Amino acid sequence: MINKFENKIRSISDWPQKGVNFRDITPVLQDKKMFRDLINELAKPYLKKKIDIVVAIDARGFLLAAPVAYKLGAGVALVRKKGKLPYKTISTKYDLEYASNILEMHRDAILPGQRVLLVDDVLATGGTMEASIKLAKQLGGKIIGAAFFIELKALNGKKKLKNCPITSLVKY
Amino acid sequence: MINKFENKIRSISDWPQKGVNFRDITPVLQDKKMFRDLINELAKPYLKKKIDIVVAIDARGFLLAAPVAYKLGAGVALVRKKGKLPYKTISTKYDLEYASNILEMHRDAILPGQRVLLVDDVLATGGTMEASIKLAKQLGGKIIGAAFFIELKALNGKKKLKNCPITSLVKY
Repeated sequence: MINKFENKIRSISDWPQKGVNFRDITPVLQDKKMFRDLINELAKPYLKKKIDIVVAIDARGFLLAAPVAYKLGAGVALVRKKGKLPYKTISTKYDLEYASNILEMHRDAILPGQRVLLVDDVLATGGTMEASIKLAKQLGGKIIGAAFFIELKALNGKKKLKNCPITSLVKY
Repeated sequence: MINKFENKIRSISDWPQKGVNFRDITPVLQDKKMFRDLINELAKPYLKKKIDIVVAIDARGFLLAAPVAYKLGAGVALVRKKGKLPYKTISTKYDLEYASNILEMHRDAILPGQRVLLVDDVLATGGTMEASIKLAKQLGGKIIGAAFFIELKALNGKKKLKNCPITSLVKY
């Protein structure tokens, strides 16, 4: 059965580099009914999980994490690329699908003991999420789960995140 | 009277460069009650304006625009820095507070006649918003307004946006 979101996700060949088939979610975001359903379905598994704070990953993750936090009545904590956060930070290096980079969080972004949900658009190799979980734990957060819109199964990102419950809405 | 958000906005001196007093909104986002109030108050003037699509400006704007769109039952259209959007784009050059850059939108991000609200975190010189309005109009959008969390009055950004109704929650 084709998931209702699948027809709206646009495949872009060879972007951002040759050999990559990029899944463009912007047609889903632009459709008001589809966007509403997307946020509701991302949030659904966590409605009764007493999430305190949703970790939003720079930059496409912001688009999903912030409305999921709003829906759950939680706050938002940012994971950003190096140099984007103005206050005192903690950082970690990570490998992603086509490069490597440094991610940061503000030192006060999560309070010790807070119940944390992480949200991102795509689970690829899992490197970005693994690094984000590491940062959230370092701040004392209790990781409740990670929610993705899309999971690229062939890249086996779940393996890297084995101690974190994962939910995703569309699998390729 | 001190606005309830003001005590939570953190001022960072000399960031991202000397002489700039940066307004860090992350403490507001992290506070669940404050974040909920922020989104509700940003959306409030537009609840009955039949907004079809909310334009989200890369990257901090994403954090406010997406939940405002969710609240309004609208879709989300992205304005991103050059090279970040995978599909066919339109673009425009803009000047911002401390540099100049190119902004892009997907060609199908807004449908002709759609009622558009633009959302960003800070109104500074107005350059980024002016460029975003230009792009949204080029796609045939009907501009209903622009909502900001913070307005830096001394920079007089409103002057650049004189044909667009502006709302903001905190003024400095």
